Parts: sequence; C-alpha cells; structure tokens
Amino acid sequence: MAHKLLLLTQENNKYRELLTSHNLPELIILGDDPSSVCEANIWFAEPQLAAPLLNLGNELQWLQSTFAGVDKITGSRQRRDYSLTNIKGIFGPLMSEYLFGYLLAHQREHAKYKQQQQQQHWAPGSFRTLQGQHLLLLGTGSIAQHIAQTAKHFGMKVTGLSKTGASKSFFDHVDTIDRLADYLPKAHAVASILPSTLDTENMLNETMLALLPAESVLFNLGRGNVLDLDALAEQLLHQPQQHAVLDVFNQEPLPSEHAIWQCPNAIITPHIAAPSFPEQVVEVFVENYHLWCQQQPLNHQVDFIKGY
Amino acid sequence: MAHKLLLLTQENNKYRELLTSHNLPELIILGDDPSSVCEANIWFAEPQLAAPLLNLGNELQWLQSTFAGVDKITGSRQRRDYSLTNIKGIFGPLMSEYLFGYLLAHQREHAKYKQQQQQQHWAPGSFRTLQGQHLLLLGTGSIAQHIAQTAKHFGMKVTGLSKTGASKSFFDHVDTIDRLADYLPKAHAVASILPSTLDTENMLNETMLALLPAESVLFNLGRGNVLDLDALAEQLLHQPQQHAVLDVFNQEPLPSEHAIWQCPNAIITPHIAAPSFPEQVVEVFVENYHLWCQQQPLNHQVDFIKGY
Repeated sequence: MAHKLLLLTQENNKYRELLTSHNLPELIILGDDPSSVCEANIWFAEPQLAAPLLNLGNELQWLQSTFAGVDKITGSRQRRDYSLTNIKGIFGPLMSEYLFGYLLAHQREHAKYKQQQQQQHWAPGSFRTLQGQHLLLLGTGSIAQHIAQTAKHFGMKVTGLSKTGASKSFFDHVDTIDRLADYLPKAHAVASILPSTLDTENMLNETMLALLPAESVLFNLGRGNVLDLDALAEQLLHQPQQHAVLDVFNQEPLPSEHAIWQCPNAIITPHIAAPSFPEQVVEVFVENYHLWCQQQPLNHQVDFIKGY
Repeated sequence: MAHKLLLLTQENNKYRELLTSHNLPELIILGDDPSSVCEANIWFAEPQLAAPLLNLGNELQWLQSTFAGVDKITGSRQRRDYSLTNIKGIFGPLMSEYLFGYLLAHQREHAKYKQQQQQQHWAPGSFRTLQGQHLLLLGTGSIAQHIAQTAKHFGMKVTGLSKTGASKSFFDHVDTIDRLADYLPKAHAVASILPSTLDTENMLNETMLALLPAESVLFNLGRGNVLDLDALAEQLLHQPQQHAVLDVFNQEPLPSEHAIWQCPNAIITPHIAAPSFPEQVVEVFVENYHLWCQQQPLNHQVDFIKGY
C-alpha cells in the first residue's frame, strides 16, 4: 500500500526535488492542491503552515516537522492523534557559530577596534578572553550540549539548567532550572535555548533579568516567549554595560516600533541563528521514512505533553 | 651562587610583584639601573627592549622572552652565545578567539544584520556556515594546531603548510609551503601564523595574493613581513568581495597614511590577537627557572638558525 506525502513548506520545489532524488519505495508525493491535505497520511511540514490545516487531515498518521520548534502545533487544544517528529541534531553547530560569533565579537571588542580603524588610530588596550568565563545555558538538550562543547573548547566554565537537572556531557555542572536565580548573578554569558512550553513562559522576567551582572551578555536563541522583552529593553537602557543578543521573538517579524530595535547594547537578528538546511532536513526524513515502513519507532519523536 | 635577574618589559612593576610571589630560590631581581644590564645572568625581556642592550650583557647566559616572536633578537648579526627561550602554548586559545571571532562575524554577516537593525528591517537572508569550508593555515606549530582543532570543531576542512610538510594533529592534510600556489585557490579562509624568518619574507606577494578566491578571507596573525601590504591594499580595491583581517604589520604602529586603513573590506587591529598575560608568562619562566637551577634543558628553546 503506497504512502501519500503532503509537502507544506516555503520551499516545496526544492524539497520535491531532493525527496525525488532519494529512493523512497511506495511513496507518492502529492501536489499542492487542497485535496492533498485530506488524502495524505504523511505530512512534511513547517509547523506554522501545518497548524491551520491539521483538522482537515483525515488520513494524517505522521507529521515530520522541518523545524526543531513545534509549539505552533502542540497547543493543548490541538489534535494529538498522530506521530509528530521534529528535527534535532543539526542545529547545534549552527547555534554555536551564532553564539560564539557574537560572544567573541563582544568580548574581543570588534566595535571598538572598528571605530579606531576609522580614525586610523592604533591603540591596543585592555583585553578579555573567554578562558575562565562562566557560561550559563538554559536547556541541556542536543543544541545546548553542542554549545557546551564549543564553550569547553574555548576554556569556559559551563553550567546547564534543565527541568530534571540530570547531568549531561560537556557541562561542568547541571542543576534544576528552578534554581535559575542562584546562577544568574555568577554568569558572564547566559543563553536560553529553551523550547516554548508552559513551564518556560516568561521565565526571564523583570525580577530574573535584574539578577544579571552589570557586564553580562544575554542570548535568546530558543523561543521568544521565554523572555520579557519590554522589561529587557527597559533594563538595557539603565545598564549600558549589559548586552543582549536576540534572535527569536514572541511576535516575528519583531514590530518595527519596539524599543529594543534602538538599544545600542542589543543586537537583533531575524531568527537566523540556526536555519534548517533542506538537505539535512531531508536526511532526517528519509531515515524516518525507512523506519516508518518497517514499523519501527521514529527518530526525534515529540512528546505532545512536554512540547519538545 | 645566586642568579641575578634583569627585567626588561613595559610592565616591570607587575612582573616584579608576580615573580616575588613565587618561591624562587637563589634569585635576586635587580633594579632598572644600567649597571644591572652588565651584571645579570638571566634576562626576562621583551625582545625589542633587549635588542639594543644585548651586547652590554657581559654575564648573559639565558634570556626568557615574554613574547612568542623573537625576530628582533635572532638576526644573523646578533649574538647567539646564550640560551634563548620564548613563550609557546599559551597563544593558541587567544589566536583562535581572534580568528574565529572575525571569521564568524564575516561568514554570519554581522555587518549586514547590524545595518538591518538600524533600519528596523526584519529580513532573514542567504546563509553561510563554516561547516565544509576550507581553512588553509600557513604554519603548523602549536598556535596553528590549536586553530586547526577549533576549525575541526566547527566542521571545517583544514590544510596546513609548513617547511617540512610533516603531518600534525588536527590537520586533515599537511603539505610543504613551497606548494602554496596550489592551495590558495581552493581556500575559503587563509591564515598566516608564520614567524618572521628569511624564508617567510614576502611570501604572500602580489602573485600569490592574486590566487585567492573572489570571496575568501585572508588573516595575518604571525608577522607583518610575510605579507606585501601595498599589493593587498591594491587588490582589495578591485575585489570588493574579498576580505582581509590584519593584526600584525611590518611597521607598528601602522602609519596612519597607509591606504589599507581605509579599505572597507579590511579589518585592522593593533597587534592584539594574542597578548602575553603576565601571569601566564611568569608561569613559563618559573618552570624554566627550576629547570635552569637543576641544569636541565629549558622549555621552549629557540633555535637561532630557524628563528623560532
């Protein structure tokens, strides 16, 4: 019996080509017409495109998300009668590039030396190194573990906070996230890679943000709703030595009138820290498709209750 | 019999304090007066400060350089009748921070996103990653090996070029530096960590520079005389997609009238990639001092002929 695949991405042509280049037995890739939504038993989809169509998927058995973040389709009111898999394992290296690119640019003072260059001014000055600095990671999953590994390579001390506090490779120390307030004051850099769940909502609120050291750098790379953006914008105004590097927001695109755009000590990027590369996403799908055909458990299954 | 130490650094007070805090038996730290130069049998010195005084050092037996680069005191006309040691092993992590800070800032387009932020413009765009890119390192010593290790962590392909071409840890491939012209056209990033010797003088001349790919990034982190700076400035004018990141120069400070200051596709920093931290330099000295007292071979001996 053939399986029928629905493509719901912004790059359907690219994905159709890549999928066709693999030998996927018994798989029919359907067209983009509305009837395909009703017919398909396998969806290959960006969560925000799948969300409004979920209830029309009469035959839906398995949805492969092309993103890591699946909060758009794991809400408590949404259906949960299918297998949901996401992408894991490919984002760690990209997130590390983003985080360490901006962290090194900050600590090694790219902006200062650029300004000196514009004035043809040669002035070696004070110096900071990542060696010995404390990195606090909110989240200890596969992305956080990759970041922790990079941080150890650069000689940093790495603490991870997670729901369970279970120890993980590459971290010097892992604790439970309810102790966040104890760890914030000691961190040189803090990065949230938390998914969007009820537990993480507004975790970095005004009270917590106030615990950040005067010269720290805060990264939000996970999901926007972890952070109170208004409180952060207000705090950065009064703490010019504090910095924030933000890639994810509650509302995307970030509204052009938000005060954080103008903060000289904030860096805003348009959710580009770790894009999904089609080639890598297709690899994850192909492996899962073979497991599916053999009725084996799929890789990267999402737990609807946890939301990741 | 006591040893007499001469301090010749720009931070003599700091070094005096650090050295005094160690238990260094039989060591007298002399004052800064001229007679100390004649009396001291151990010099602890920045090479450019030691150079003009070398011939006055009647008792000189061992000079511990506080820098890695010792070309100021290893010229063919300078005396070679003493033991010269330098600093190795502490610069790798700092050089890696510098190189990957600027390489990631370039590849992950910090400048573009900064400009978009200034316009409150949300525009995720094309994307580059270090994964799979080719890094060509000129030099395969301890600093280059540390950089190679960082590059492998970021998923790059790393080739090293050295005089002998002997294989080294963390490099995918090592070849002899006389084959430079074969490797330049394939590199996404090229970094020279070469010391200043007769062999390396002007190695990156106009002909070699012309072999760099149109979108490559060139780093000079070793010594200024490896590179024809005038030829590079000219080439960057005509190759706006090419970039250079330069920390060392034939003449330092770099004269304010040099055209390279103004190149929008060049980054100029004032020899700050890997400063010597006094604490680390003193550690190297203390270990060597104990070896010296036991008449054991010293660490990091410089070969006057090779110049490193």
